[in-house]
Amino acid sequence: MSGRSSRLHIVELLRKSIDTPCQMKLLLIPVFLMAIAGIAPAAVKTEVVEYKQGDTALEGWMVYDDSGAGKRPGVLVVHDYYGVGDFVKGRAGELAKLGYVAFVADIYGKDVRPKSQQEAGAQAGKYRNDRPLLRARVNAALDVLKKDPNVDPARIAAIGYCFGGMGVLELARSGADIAGVVSFHGSLDTPTPQDAKNIRCKVLILHGADDPHAPAAQVAALEDEMRAAGVDYQVVLYGGAVHAFTRPDAGNDPSKGVAYNEKADKRSWQAMKDFFAEIFTVASK
Amino acid sequence: MSGRSSRLHIVELLRKSIDTPCQMKLLLIPVFLMAIAGIAPAAVKTEVVEYKQGDTALEGWMVYDDSGAGKRPGVLVVHDYYGVGDFVKGRAGELAKLGYVAFVADIYGKDVRPKSQQEAGAQAGKYRNDRPLLRARVNAALDVLKKDPNVDPARIAAIGYCFGGMGVLELARSGADIAGVVSFHGSLDTPTPQDAKNIRCKVLILHGADDPHAPAAQVAALEDEMRAAGVDYQVVLYGGAVHAFTRPDAGNDPSKGVAYNEKADKRSWQAMKDFFAEIFTVASK
Repeated sequence: MSGRSSRLHIVELLRKSIDTPCQMKLLLIPVFLMAIAGIAPAAVKTEVVEYKQGDTALEGWMVYDDSGAGKRPGVLVVHDYYGVGDFVKGRAGELAKLGYVAFVADIYGKDVRPKSQQEAGAQAGKYRNDRPLLRARVNAALDVLKKDPNVDPARIAAIGYCFGGMGVLELARSGADIAGVVSFHGSLDTPTPQDAKNIRCKVLILHGADDPHAPAAQVAALEDEMRAAGVDYQVVLYGGAVHAFTRPDAGNDPSKGVAYNEKADKRSWQAMKDFFAEIFTVASK
Repeated sequence: MSGRSSRLHIVELLRKSIDTPCQMKLLLIPVFLMAIAGIAPAAVKTEVVEYKQGDTALEGWMVYDDSGAGKRPGVLVVHDYYGVGDFVKGRAGELAKLGYVAFVADIYGKDVRPKSQQEAGAQAGKYRNDRPLLRARVNAALDVLKKDPNVDPARIAAIGYCFGGMGVLELARSGADIAGVVSFHGSLDTPTPQDAKNIRCKVLILHGADDPHAPAAQVAALEDEMRAAGVDYQVVLYGGAVHAFTRPDAGNDPSKGVAYNEKADKRSWQAMKDFFAEIFTVASK
């Protein structure tokens, strides 16, 4: 059967089986695919999870599609200096729609929800200056995610924004057994670059080329650190983008050093998706 | 109808219409999609195209899927210092399979096909030292692509490898009216960085973080050039990758400064595909 006649044959069968115009069939493609793959339309659930690190009570969110797709990759989401809030919750929701179980980590503590930049800065500074504590907090959240019944513990990644970028990099430096970490406009510096020798996962840095809070010299230092340790890393620099380029509430004036950049936001999200497609495929083999 | 019963309904219809086991249906998905979209399986054709720049005879290859999909985006492919050959022809074939019309540009001239590194270096050096001539040669190839009956002239990009990276950047600096350029481990330096003010397209630099032939200082200079001119640019650095990371025949010893890197090859190809998805969508609006 030639390619053309085979094609016509299948189209004819589809015509007979479902009495809709041809254009309608295009609309049905996603439904076909979901039907064949056994996936119901997404229904994202968000569950509050209380957990502890040492004696400190923490409260995160487990966000996932509850349509019963079985064990799937898990993604830890580490907040920026504002702490647990709508921004990271929104990102976790997007991850859930992509088919992942997302867990929004709480680094600061159950009742610590900064109300101002000053409060946020004070909290972030506490963990910036105590990396062992930061590592312990991120690892405590990782443990929660790994134990979730919907999560395949062999396929875990962590993403972080600004302060959370520092968090996921310290998670990697702590030797966490995960597939990869992604930093979005993260703080890349560390007091212990030699700890990169502990890194067992792949590293993706998504960064504003004009970020004054983590400038080119800090990117270069991170590269030196990763290079020296033989880490599988990638750095993506978005021209014109500054700090917090994924946050729509960051304004649109890059001269302030902090601004939303829609192009960089979309491009970095796509880069993350590609990274996950790679690391979760490899990890499941 | 609930999501679940709707799903079962469609699955049942598919079962009745085509008498194959459920697993087989998965294999049929691409055929369904192509049938519904009116696309026959790819049949890549390669045509030799003779053209001229000034009095110089040039010979490139137009590579495309001849299944009659109508006007589609065009991608100019500029060779590395070895000139027109199997490597760029292969990449053009991959682009054709993705649905683009690819044109392999000939920069050196119809009868100039270097047989040794020495010959290749001499040819590349000639154009490195005569950027106006290089621009003229790349633009001559662009004209051929733009006039191709299968190409939508509003959706054109150019990619280049090593020497060809220099070529597509000079094409951009010449003010070419295209949607974007992509450099794979390209030479990024230019004697006229001020010409970046002419750039009308988006720029994507896919680069080995350890490329000794276009090292970090050259990347930084390119960034300064693009930043000063307000160009929409991105730089992706692949850790552990050196020069020629996309060429399987480049060996596998990065300490030589030139080596194939399968991960960087695949990642950079994916980054190019994402870039095309973005720029061709915007350009067609």
